[in-house]
Amino acid sequence: MPEDKTYDIVVHNGILLTVNQTFDVIEKGLVCIADGRLERIEAQTSEEQLPEARQIIDARGGIIMPGLVNTHTHAPMSLFRGLADDLPLMTWLNDYIFKAEARWLNPEAVYTATRLSCAEMLLSGTTTCCDGYFFEDSVAQAVEESGMRAILGQGIIDFPAPGVPDPEKNVAEALRFIRNWQGKSSLISPGLFCHSPYTCSEKTLREARRVADETDTLFQIHVAETQSEVKQIQAKHSLSPVQYLDSLGILNSRTLAVHAIWVDEKDMGIMAGRNVGVSVTTESEMKLASGVAPVAGFLEKGVALGLGTDGCASNNNLDMFQEMDFLAKLHKVTNLDPTILDARQVLMLATRGGAKAIGLADQIGSLEVGKKADLIIIDTHKPHLTPLYDPSSHLVYAAGGGDVRDVIIDGRLVVKDRTLLTIKVEDVIEEMEHLGRQIALIASSGVET
Amino acid sequence: MPEDKTYDIVVHNGILLTVNQTFDVIEKGLVCIADGRLERIEAQTSEEQLPEARQIIDARGGIIMPGLVNTHTHAPMSLFRGLADDLPLMTWLNDYIFKAEARWLNPEAVYTATRLSCAEMLLSGTTTCCDGYFFEDSVAQAVEESGMRAILGQGIIDFPAPGVPDPEKNVAEALRFIRNWQGKSSLISPGLFCHSPYTCSEKTLREARRVADETDTLFQIHVAETQSEVKQIQAKHSLSPVQYLDSLGILNSRTLAVHAIWVDEKDMGIMAGRNVGVSVTTESEMKLASGVAPVAGFLEKGVALGLGTDGCASNNNLDMFQEMDFLAKLHKVTNLDPTILDARQVLMLATRGGAKAIGLADQIGSLEVGKKADLIIIDTHKPHLTPLYDPSSHLVYAAGGGDVRDVIIDGRLVVKDRTLLTIKVEDVIEEMEHLGRQIALIASSGVET
Repeated sequence: MPEDKTYDIVVHNGILLTVNQTFDVIEKGLVCIADGRLERIEAQTSEEQLPEARQIIDARGGIIMPGLVNTHTHAPMSLFRGLADDLPLMTWLNDYIFKAEARWLNPEAVYTATRLSCAEMLLSGTTTCCDGYFFEDSVAQAVEESGMRAILGQGIIDFPAPGVPDPEKNVAEALRFIRNWQGKSSLISPGLFCHSPYTCSEKTLREARRVADETDTLFQIHVAETQSEVKQIQAKHSLSPVQYLDSLGILNSRTLAVHAIWVDEKDMGIMAGRNVGVSVTTESEMKLASGVAPVAGFLEKGVALGLGTDGCASNNNLDMFQEMDFLAKLHKVTNLDPTILDARQVLMLATRGGAKAIGLADQIGSLEVGKKADLIIIDTHKPHLTPLYDPSSHLVYAAGGGDVRDVIIDGRLVVKDRTLLTIKVEDVIEEMEHLGRQIALIASSGVET
Repeated sequence: MPEDKTYDIVVHNGILLTVNQTFDVIEKGLVCIADGRLERIEAQTSEEQLPEARQIIDARGGIIMPGLVNTHTHAPMSLFRGLADDLPLMTWLNDYIFKAEARWLNPEAVYTATRLSCAEMLLSGTTTCCDGYFFEDSVAQAVEESGMRAILGQGIIDFPAPGVPDPEKNVAEALRFIRNWQGKSSLISPGLFCHSPYTCSEKTLREARRVADETDTLFQIHVAETQSEVKQIQAKHSLSPVQYLDSLGILNSRTLAVHAIWVDEKDMGIMAGRNVGVSVTTESEMKLASGVAPVAGFLEKGVALGLGTDGCASNNNLDMFQEMDFLAKLHKVTNLDPTILDARQVLMLATRGGAKAIGLADQIGSLEVGKKADLIIIDTHKPHLTPLYDPSSHLVYAAGGGDVRDVIIDGRLVVKDRTLLTIKVEDVIEEMEHLGRQIALIASSGVET
């Protein structure tokens, strides 16, 4: 044990949930961080003698745990939070969201909205997100400035899209984005995001796959989200969406299948065999009434599965604690089995599971020596978290994003005592309110096109 | 307009959701309170000239709305929050909860745990709860001191119960409780709570009904919570639980049926015909995998329906905002229809609907002149509530209990800038932590009996 070392940060005096393979819990834990990595994780043996560190953080009896991994976001969609609710998916998408995107998206708005989303995510304990949208350079800039870790996919769709008026150039634009950001930042991993098998042609899908493989980046795609998508693909290709994508060679271990609700045993078998990651966005899928993903089936087959909030226009927030709570409860009630998806398993999915699904299992997702120092501290000294018998239970069933006190990413303190250190929250709220007022005005006056 | 009057409290400068019959929203509202009642509700016409008041509360652009009505709690069960999760209902109930109750409940523990629950409820915007438990005098004392409004039912069950060792005396004990509290406090309405048709005999149910009728108090009962309950009652009485209760004359307009999950069209018709109120506790019912209540069916038949958290041992918190979010999303996805239970309707159920279900429709549940002054202010100046297009959408889909800034009950400010004025939160947390440590010690050492 290097007694003479000075660490960057030492965190102590909290219940430490490692979320490692054996789910080790240390009643009073100590974490030492240097050069952005976890160097020591152990029981705290002394009250007075802590290792030397430039910064000592006292968790004050709270919970120290890995940062949450949000495997599916459209960060800039905070711009449209609550603009249209309680509508059928296709009405919501075609009549509201696509129109609002066409009218309002530009690099500046995307940058501002992403800053707001990062503020929300960081303040609620998310340390990594996996995003897919347009103007993804602006997303990347905002994410990097916020100090958050992210996989960012430039959107690909075979319609004129924000920032990509000519769909012929959508894959080239994604490649440009990837080249622009690859190796640039320790926080940002660029990639691409094909919207879906029903909005991207076979040619587009194949080209995007080639780009992802050649650049060794993540290929994200919405798959089997609705029954109507399945019908459409089935009618056109006589295959399920998963089987169709597999027939094109799209599915491999650098693929994240988002939603994957309407899949059968054969589909799940293919996904398991191809080592595809899956992102389940429970709240959004419930709100849009898309359906209930076969989470138990995926887990049984060993598919790497993570949780995601989806864009907050269909959720309507980015709180991963709620996502855990919804996941556990939805699958208990729809299976009429209260024992499935217990608190520890759900907590694992929201951290280590998500990291694996997006290909970062060796870097993040648990508190283990050698991994990146992405961790959060939960303040449990609150009525709704008292008494405390089981920290996992509290995190899944009782806590919320507002209970996150401190956030460390890549060994850097970004939230301290609920104050975000990287973004001026007041400023970004004001900028978003300004954008929101313009959008509301146009929307209510019916001038929207 | 009485220009010369000095009000007790004036609230202004917020988006005012009346949640009245026509769901009127006032963009910049003004509320004047005197003698515990709402005296004026109108648009604020001047920035400078406000009505005279002993206390002026600036909502600072947030949302002013009726306090939330939690129609089903077991307030003292915060004592067992997270003690046992992810278990089958009967295992959870018989092997953990009933045992823990037998071992740990006493008037002091019930008083302390209720104080904690009241702190949690008040800080998350609940202004009225409808509770059922044992040692209900201690519950009443704690609730009244907290400044919260409540209907409180002394528990009736045909086993030896906490504080009622002889089940022969359970109804008499409830009557004593009712007499002890009736007319004593403007906040407390006593009543009784029969545990269920499978734990109370026909004789007990009939006697309890007579007591409730004679004292004009609310008769609460868990009904049709699980499929096994239905089978049990069907086997014994050849009737569904609802039909069985109806055959005993139990169902009338002073009845609150809690859960009512496994009911058919005929049952719902009976409940509608008898003007029975229904409490749906979505999160608890999901967590225990009890089932999905036919909420759309109840609403179609005009049944008065409210939301409840249930005890926080099966939820595991008392946040009514989450309850709204879960209700809306669960019924959308299980019906595969995103248009049902829209945000306004859900908000109505959590306020006016709940008030009607528990028989307080003329007093609370909406902001209307003449009603009791029970209102809350939501701080929307936060990343996850920005921008703001539709306040109802935010309240149901994006907000949480932690966004409640101020709470007024019976014309009295009980939460100011997130500080609870009636209970020392630090003290009650410390007391509960102490109780929790004892319970955890016994539970983990296996001495529990």
